Amino acid sequence: MDKKHGKQSISFAAPPAMTATATVAGPMEGDGLLGGQFDRILEDNLAGQDSWEKSEAAMLEWAIRTAVARGGTLADIDFILAGDLLNQLMSAHFAVRGLGRPFLGLYGACSTMAESLLIGAILIDGGFASRVAVGVSSHHDAAERQYRYPTEQGVQRPPLAQWTVTGAGSAVLTQGGAGPKVTAATVGKVVDAGLKDVNAMGPAMAPAAADTLWHHLQDFGRQPGYYDIILTGDLGQIGKKLLIQLMQEKGVDIAANYEDCGLMIYRDDQDPHAGASGCAASALVLCAHAYPLLVIGRLKRILLIGTGSLHSTTSYQQKESIPCIAHAVAIEA
Amino acid sequence: MDKKHGKQSISFAAPPAMTATATVAGPMEGDGLLGGQFDRILEDNLAGQDSWEKSEAAMLEWAIRTAVARGGTLADIDFILAGDLLNQLMSAHFAVRGLGRPFLGLYGACSTMAESLLIGAILIDGGFASRVAVGVSSHHDAAERQYRYPTEQGVQRPPLAQWTVTGAGSAVLTQGGAGPKVTAATVGKVVDAGLKDVNAMGPAMAPAAADTLWHHLQDFGRQPGYYDIILTGDLGQIGKKLLIQLMQEKGVDIAANYEDCGLMIYRDDQDPHAGASGCAASALVLCAHAYPLLVIGRLKRILLIGTGSLHSTTSYQQKESIPCIAHAVAIEA
Repeated sequence: MDKKHGKQSISFAAPPAMTATATVAGPMEGDGLLGGQFDRILEDNLAGQDSWEKSEAAMLEWAIRTAVARGGTLADIDFILAGDLLNQLMSAHFAVRGLGRPFLGLYGACSTMAESLLIGAILIDGGFASRVAVGVSSHHDAAERQYRYPTEQGVQRPPLAQWTVTGAGSAVLTQGGAGPKVTAATVGKVVDAGLKDVNAMGPAMAPAAADTLWHHLQDFGRQPGYYDIILTGDLGQIGKKLLIQLMQEKGVDIAANYEDCGLMIYRDDQDPHAGASGCAASALVLCAHAYPLLVIGRLKRILLIGTGSLHSTTSYQQKESIPCIAHAVAIEA
Repeated sequence: MDKKHGKQSISFAAPPAMTATATVAGPMEGDGLLGGQFDRILEDNLAGQDSWEKSEAAMLEWAIRTAVARGGTLADIDFILAGDLLNQLMSAHFAVRGLGRPFLGLYGACSTMAESLLIGAILIDGGFASRVAVGVSSHHDAAERQYRYPTEQGVQRPPLAQWTVTGAGSAVLTQGGAGPKVTAATVGKVVDAGLKDVNAMGPAMAPAAADTLWHHLQDFGRQPGYYDIILTGDLGQIGKKLLIQLMQEKGVDIAANYEDCGLMIYRDDQDPHAGASGCAASALVLCAHAYPLLVIGRLKRILLIGTGSLHSTTSYQQKESIPCIAHAVAIEA
């Protein structure tokens, strides 16, 4: 049974269902545009832990446990797939070490929610699993001190910077079952447009998003209007404009039904600069906002394009440009 | 078609074939026990690059390109799966950015070769791909300065320390095709035995290896003697002894046909202390040593148990214990 579809896409013969999701977010995210839609909002960024990193791991564990508990138990979960932005996936590993289920660690930077959904769907549609839990997290303060400066230092952020989302999202995929279906996916290539400003990740990631979206539409012979909404992960204000322009240059107009998760988290007066970023940006928008709309049929078809900036502080210090990736997952009611 | 097999194992209905491998190693590895079996040995650890990290990425790119060229072209490759030890998978991302193929980034620390083989086999046996390239790398100097101290500093290594292998290995898996078959896999759980000494990773990882091996044997109803050889990734001298002991406590004697890749790379007089470690330890032993023996039928069945220590410098500084994982892949001639 050949499920390859065109050059870099796959389709699912028996599309797995997203039977549950769960989200937890930080106080700033709770005060933002989607505040009313999260399952849980932290009182502060530490959430009772003694470090930001442990707070992030605790959020991810809570999200996975909560999603799994909505219609099942941990013992029913064949595999957990997770990742995050911290070196060596610190949050994911500490989140799952008490869960006692087989685990696969993934790294696609902020594209990891899409990567985990597509590999989860492969496991189920391929017959290797009945039930898979996926989850990702990010944490503003933990990410800032790893990638840039400790937030206590109060360094002024450049105008193109995006604000890493504090939060975690998890989804459960099941063979059969009720819920929106993961119907197809397009696996991204690493695309490096030569940009070097790690404070402007949106523009760096836009060419990777354009490449994946273009191939997705080509592979399936679809127009952008096939989807109610095309959602990129965290291109932010500049990256979103650039993606629209890059697609226009290919003769594809996405302006009518395209949104970026990075612009759906914070209110403008929260001053996130160019928008939100982080693994949790797309995870929160998908799991807290789009998922319920798919369940009630308000949305019929969405394409989530997770976008990831794959640089490290070392690659930056060695004056390398920024390799980026984008993975697309089609979810249909 | 249910390919789940017991609690945490899967079996492949149409086992993918390993149709090619390629390896490159550093000078110390070239001077070691397997020196004559590598495809390429670097003259120095920089290999013409201006940093150790770029040297590692160049090795991985060379290994993937070389394995792929043995019986095909890059255009035939549906997906590349890769990972390494560097923060944000720097080596993997820079290795593949020029290859132009769909890419999935994986992180399982030193277990990543086994993780990539099992996900690659899932993609093929599930019908999502015809040909997948997998690859991993590690680099002694790059790993030391990221995890411990810059090697220029000349810090004395503790007796239980292992020596991170400089090298890269890649394998091509294909639907059908001639070559040893990936017949089954067992996905590991994150196991944290509470150990905190990051200079003694072998003992920390042994309980994870024991858990995965135990479940593999249980899930398939096999005895250790089913395999000509059971190969763990990089438990080293102490971890190897501990695994034998842990399995004995479960009533399973593996002493007769068990080896650790970490003890197959260096000669004792090269003074690696407790053995070799790093993603490349198991990749070099599998791709350069075991693979040819499987091809000519000298080995009939092997079980590769990749072992990974999932700590980070941050988790260590925060006084956390070491979460570990082990993934098993059965390869049969």
